[in-house]
Amino acid sequence: MAPRTTRVVCLVRRPDGEPVPADFAVEERPLPPLGEGQLLVRNLYMSVDPSMRGRLESTEKHYTHNFTPGSPLDGRALGVVKESRCASMPPGTYVRHQLGWREWAVLDAADTDGAGRIDPRSAPLSTWLGLLGQTGFTAYVGLTRIAELRPGDTVFVSAAAGAVGTAAGQFARLLGAERVVGTAGGPDKCALLVKEFGYDAAADYRAEPVREALARLAPDGLDVYFDNVGGEQLAAALHALRTGGRVALCGMMSQFGGERRSADINQLIQAVLKRLTLRGFIVRDHEDLRPEFERRVAGWLGEGRITARETVVDGLDNAAGALLSLLGGGNVGKMLVRLSDPG
Amino acid sequence: MAPRTTRVVCLVRRPDGEPVPADFAVEERPLPPLGEGQLLVRNLYMSVDPSMRGRLESTEKHYTHNFTPGSPLDGRALGVVKESRCASMPPGTYVRHQLGWREWAVLDAADTDGAGRIDPRSAPLSTWLGLLGQTGFTAYVGLTRIAELRPGDTVFVSAAAGAVGTAAGQFARLLGAERVVGTAGGPDKCALLVKEFGYDAAADYRAEPVREALARLAPDGLDVYFDNVGGEQLAAALHALRTGGRVALCGMMSQFGGERRSADINQLIQAVLKRLTLRGFIVRDHEDLRPEFERRVAGWLGEGRITARETVVDGLDNAAGALLSLLGGGNVGKMLVRLSDPG
Repeated sequence: MAPRTTRVVCLVRRPDGEPVPADFAVEERPLPPLGEGQLLVRNLYMSVDPSMRGRLESTEKHYTHNFTPGSPLDGRALGVVKESRCASMPPGTYVRHQLGWREWAVLDAADTDGAGRIDPRSAPLSTWLGLLGQTGFTAYVGLTRIAELRPGDTVFVSAAAGAVGTAAGQFARLLGAERVVGTAGGPDKCALLVKEFGYDAAADYRAEPVREALARLAPDGLDVYFDNVGGEQLAAALHALRTGGRVALCGMMSQFGGERRSADINQLIQAVLKRLTLRGFIVRDHEDLRPEFERRVAGWLGEGRITARETVVDGLDNAAGALLSLLGGGNVGKMLVRLSDPG
Repeated sequence: MAPRTTRVVCLVRRPDGEPVPADFAVEERPLPPLGEGQLLVRNLYMSVDPSMRGRLESTEKHYTHNFTPGSPLDGRALGVVKESRCASMPPGTYVRHQLGWREWAVLDAADTDGAGRIDPRSAPLSTWLGLLGQTGFTAYVGLTRIAELRPGDTVFVSAAAGAVGTAAGQFARLLGAERVVGTAGGPDKCALLVKEFGYDAAADYRAEPVREALARLAPDGLDVYFDNVGGEQLAAALHALRTGGRVALCGMMSQFGGERRSADINQLIQAVLKRLTLRGFIVRDHEDLRPEFERRVAGWLGEGRITARETVVDGLDNAAGALLSLLGGGNVGKMLVRLSDPG
């Protein structure tokens, strides 16, 4: 018997500064009856992403809608079809979609992706939201198409212990980088970067100016910078890049929180002096690369050449806390919430 | 009879803040005897460039050497060969070279460029340092190769009344831009931009926040920004650019002078949201485009489709003053010093 309601995480109010638990609440909401072409999906995992932070603000961004106080959050999730009015996606099909932050979802079959590609035996299910999902795809697109990584390059990744960063470091190595260095918050994460994620060296950005760290870790300079944070780390990278260097701009976590006033935009004079290219990107523009990406990364996973490290939190009641933990740097690798036992 | 000495402009000391006249002095220096393969050149015109500003500082940049207190300045110049120990460049040949800021120069024939290409009857001689020289070439390379200008684009140029800016506006129009807007200092320059230099509209950056000006002048957004100044104008352009927009980073005059602390580097979040590309460039990397550039621009000049507006100052004694005037925004179009009557 299909449920008539689902529990959802709602935004109670916009954060006043840093988000706090009281900005969120779990509520019960009705599930509409299935229309033609629709699916009822039991969510198994949902993704917790740094990009959620910007969507809590009132300023509208360009690449997706912002959250509305009083309404449910949404985000990428993976579930299994329980009822279907779409012949090509019968019950039992695994789908990825955008209606996370809830236990059950009713959605148009056309709004799912990955159906038929997600084989729960080929890789651990959660991987399809991590290394084989948007996270890994972001790292892959950023390195290959945006930064045009070439064999022999020296690569720097910021927020290297995060979901995208742990993927980017490992991919860069397998794509032929000569040297891969990263920054993270705290000595434990830095140790993990070298031990588990293929980094040659790592620096704690809280303990040392990143410009000095880069002079030490990459004394011959950088060819590629995969930027997840902006701010002072971006400025430091501009100084460390070699002539013809390339920057993939993936996001700017430092625009939130304490570092409101960071480096000056005129640090870009380095881009003139050294003929640098900086490119912002949003992964959904690059779907044409997805088959190549899935083939290569699934291969690396199958051969045990990469590590799919995840931080998994259990239950919708802990989802908002998982987001706050992520924004505070509490995760290593991909942050996921398990919403139901896949078994 | 060849002269044994030449007058030169020397740097007396590095400027303490803004350069002042006492930082420079005209001195008499010996001219060495001609060695094999060398030329004695009577300089006719020399170029005064915004990039001189950075070379007065002690911090070494990457693309050329800095000036040394007690030594002559140098820079692009055009002259006529008076004595020659190079058979292919007899007396009477017009040459461009790097030994400006002096009336006579002894230099290696191999260190000249344009020999044989500069036909003093094809275009006014001074044009070979302006629209047909590095200035025009910078505008051409920036628009075509770096910003990848496409027919129908809306283009914004800062420092639009300057040497590169007056070239860029006119070239953009002839290269197919749908709309060309610019900023300059003061209402007189803005009026000239529209009246003489092919701009559809111009705004005085001193009188109005550039972000507001762009919303008014280009309400549908920008495709290309040709950046000569950096700082707040670059930040404003990032906001005004449309998805997929392109920025050619040509120089950052606002890094000097009052605007030491300008916009924040995290304004580059716009580059992520809108998939912008920013590229720094230095024109000497793009010599392969020079024949195409000279052919097209000489054609436009010959057909009267572009205006070669120059600010010409007479005599080496006024050269330092010309530089100070340029840095203070006193010029429209190319700033030149005439060192000798070409006649």
